[in-house]
Amino acid sequence: MRVEIVAVGTELLLGQIADTNSQWLAERLAAHGISSHFHQHVGDNHERIVLAFRTALARSDALIVCGGLGPTQDDITREALSAVMNQPLERDDDVVEEIRRMFSARNREMPENNLRQADAPRGATRIAPTRGTAPGLICALGQKVIYALPGVPYELSEMFERAVLPDLEERQRQRGHRGVIASRVLKTWGTSESALAEALSGRFEALTGGGEVTIAFLASGIEGIKVRLTARGDDLAQVEERLRGEEGRVRELITERFGDIIFAVDNQTMEDVVADALASRGWSLAVAESLTGGLIASRLVNVAGASNWFRGGVVSYASSVKFDLLGVDVGPVVSASAAQQMASGVRALLGATCAISVTGVAGPKEQDGHRPGTVFVGLDVAGSVDHTTLHLPGDRPRVRAYSAISALDFLRRALARTP
Amino acid sequence: MRVEIVAVGTELLLGQIADTNSQWLAERLAAHGISSHFHQHVGDNHERIVLAFRTALARSDALIVCGGLGPTQDDITREALSAVMNQPLERDDDVVEEIRRMFSARNREMPENNLRQADAPRGATRIAPTRGTAPGLICALGQKVIYALPGVPYELSEMFERAVLPDLEERQRQRGHRGVIASRVLKTWGTSESALAEALSGRFEALTGGGEVTIAFLASGIEGIKVRLTARGDDLAQVEERLRGEEGRVRELITERFGDIIFAVDNQTMEDVVADALASRGWSLAVAESLTGGLIASRLVNVAGASNWFRGGVVSYASSVKFDLLGVDVGPVVSASAAQQMASGVRALLGATCAISVTGVAGPKEQDGHRPGTVFVGLDVAGSVDHTTLHLPGDRPRVRAYSAISALDFLRRALARTP
Repeated sequence: MRVEIVAVGTELLLGQIADTNSQWLAERLAAHGISSHFHQHVGDNHERIVLAFRTALARSDALIVCGGLGPTQDDITREALSAVMNQPLERDDDVVEEIRRMFSARNREMPENNLRQADAPRGATRIAPTRGTAPGLICALGQKVIYALPGVPYELSEMFERAVLPDLEERQRQRGHRGVIASRVLKTWGTSESALAEALSGRFEALTGGGEVTIAFLASGIEGIKVRLTARGDDLAQVEERLRGEEGRVRELITERFGDIIFAVDNQTMEDVVADALASRGWSLAVAESLTGGLIASRLVNVAGASNWFRGGVVSYASSVKFDLLGVDVGPVVSASAAQQMASGVRALLGATCAISVTGVAGPKEQDGHRPGTVFVGLDVAGSVDHTTLHLPGDRPRVRAYSAISALDFLRRALARTP
Repeated sequence: MRVEIVAVGTELLLGQIADTNSQWLAERLAAHGISSHFHQHVGDNHERIVLAFRTALARSDALIVCGGLGPTQDDITREALSAVMNQPLERDDDVVEEIRRMFSARNREMPENNLRQADAPRGATRIAPTRGTAPGLICALGQKVIYALPGVPYELSEMFERAVLPDLEERQRQRGHRGVIASRVLKTWGTSESALAEALSGRFEALTGGGEVTIAFLASGIEGIKVRLTARGDDLAQVEERLRGEEGRVRELITERFGDIIFAVDNQTMEDVVADALASRGWSLAVAESLTGGLIASRLVNVAGASNWFRGGVVSYASSVKFDLLGVDVGPVVSASAAQQMASGVRALLGATCAISVTGVAGPKEQDGHRPGTVFVGLDVAGSVDHTTLHLPGDRPRVRAYSAISALDFLRRALARTP
C-alpha cells in the first residue's frame, strides 16, 4: 500500500500556516510500515482539488485528504470527492439531526451552512466526529480508497487512529502485505556530511542492493549531522535486530575514521547528553559567553531538571565585563588564554564544578587580528583547564550556533574522558 | 505564472522533519503576487522524483525544487533534472576548482563525492553558492523553468532572493503581466489575534469589497502578531499610496483600542527597535535572566553593532547566584521585588545605563506559590525602577519566548516615555 497525503487549503499555498498534518500523518504511517511516496498541497479550488486527487490516484493506492470538510463556502472537499467518484452528493438525515442536536446542546443557533457537513458522495462511508462537527469519509474507488479527514489537527489525529489506520492495516493484510519499519538516528558533530558519506560508502552500497536497511544523511544545523538507518522486516523483533546489527557496523566505521563524534541517538540532544554526564557525577556547570551571547545557556535551560546541575552564566559581551567580573587579563579578548580565564573566572564566580566559555569573532569584521569564524572555547573541569580553537564558516548567526554546539561537544568529550 | 514547489527528501515522507522551506517560499511568492497552486513532497528516489517533476510541469509554469543538491549518494535532484530535460550531466571545471578552493581554505580534505556538486544538465545555468558548497540550478524547458535550490533553509533563502525571484519577475514581465503588489507588516505585542481582527473588522469588510488592499493576521510567536496589508496596483507609486492610506487608518484603529502595541514595521524586530532607542540616547543595557536562561541576551547580540550599547548579562539560574552576585534579598525569587533587585543588581555589576530582568515559573510545576506562566519583569532605567507581572500561556519554551519579547517590549515602552 502506497498512501499519498493531500492537504487542502489556500492558506498552505500562501505560506500562512505550516502543514503539521502531513508531517504527523507521515510519521504515523511510517511507524506502521505503510509507505508514502508523495504528498501534495492544493488550494480551495474545485478543479485543482479534483486534479490533485486524480494525480494521486494514478500513482498511489490510497489517499488521505486533510481539510475542506468544514461548514463554510470554501470547504469543498466533498464536492471534489463527488466529482472524482462520479457519484452525487446525498444529504444524510441522521447526520442533519445530529448536527442540529449538537448546536442546540450548546444553545447556539445553527447557521444553515452547517448542514453541508451532512453531505457525502453516494457510496461513501462516514466516520462519526467525536471532537468536532465534521464527519470524516471513506470513499472506495475499485481497489483504491480515499480517506477524507478534517483539517483541525486535534480532530484529524483522533479519526486517523480510530478509523483510518485500522482500515489501512486491514487492506494491507488483504493484499498479503506483512512487515514493519523502524529508524535509528545517530547524531554526529565534528566532520562534514560528505566525509561521513564517504566513510560509510561501503555500507551505502551494501544496503542499496539488499534493501533491508537504508542509510541517509541529514545536516541539521545545531543538531549536528544525522545518520539515519531505516529497516524493514516482518515484525518488530526482526527490524530491531537489523537496526542493531547495522548500527554496530556504522558506529565502528565512524569511530574508526573520526573518533568519538557520535554524541546522541534519536531524539536526544547535545544538551541532554551533557546534562546526563553532569547529573550522574553530581557536578554543576557555569558558562561564560561572549560572541554566543547567551545561546549556550538558553539551550541548557531547555533540559528538564536543569536546576539540578546548571548554576547559570555570564554574558560578557563588553571587554570590561571580561576583565572586571571574570578576571581576564586586560588585553586582547579573542585568544585561547582569555577563553581559559573566562571559564575559570565564571566557575569561581558562580561556584560550579565545571565551566565552559566562548570568545571569538562572529564577523563580519576582523577582531584582534583574527578572521571571522575564529572562536576559542575554554574549559575548566574541577580546576583542570583546557581550550580548543575553531574555524567556523558562515554568517554571524551560523558562527554563533556552531560555536554553541562545539563548546558543548568539547565539554561532552572532556566529561567522557573524566572518570 | 503559476509556480509549483517540489520539496525532495525521504525525511519529509517519513515525517522526520517539517517542511519549512515550502511554507517560507509560499509566503515569499505570495508577497510578490506570484501564484502557487500546488506543492509536492517526494522522496530520494529517481523514478518518483522524475514523476513529480513531470506532474508539476504539466500543471504549472515554473517549479522550485528544494533539496537533493548535496554531495552524498542520496542527493539525486541533478540526475532527475537531467532525465526530465533529456540532457546529459556535465561537470564544470570552474566549479570543481571553486569547491576544491573552499575546502582548502578551511584546511579540510575534500571527499571525492563533493565534485558531484559541479555536475549540471547541459543547458542549465548555475546559481553560485555563497553560503554552502551546493550551486543552485536554473533549467529552462521551452516556456517553462525549473529552479533547483539546496534544502538547507539558510542557503535556500539567500539563493531565492538573489537569483530566483528576479528571474521569476522578469518572466512575469515578459508575459505581459502588469501590476505590482506590495505589503506592509505591522508587528504588535500586547493583544490577541482575535481581538485585533475584531478591532479591524470594519476595515476588513471595507477592503473585501474593493479588493485594492487586503488585510491578514498572522500570529508569529516571538515576532508578535503581524497585521499584513497587501495592495495591488498599476505601479509602485500607486501601491505605495494605497498602503500608506490604509496603514494610517489601521494604525489609528489599533492605537485607539489597544494603545502603543505596534512596535515595528516589516522586517524590523523588537530588538532592532530597542537597539535604536538605546543607541540614539548613547545609553547601554545589561540583562539579568532567570527562566529565560540567556534567550534575551542571545537575541540582543543578533543586532548589528550591539557592542555599541550591549554590556552583557547574568544568567542567574540558581537562586544563590541571584543572592550572591545580583544582591537580591534572600527569600522567594519569583516576585516583583526580586525582579527589580535583579535589574538594579545587574545594572550596577556591569556598569550599564539601563537593565531588564526576568524571573518566573516556566512550568510545569508551581514555584513559590505561583502558577506556571507567572513571570515578573524588572526594569531599571538610570536608577528609576519599575516592574510588570505577566500571566503567559503555553509550555516551557513558549513561556520563555513570550517572556523574552514581553521584557523587551516593557523596555521599549519605558524608553519611548523617557525623553
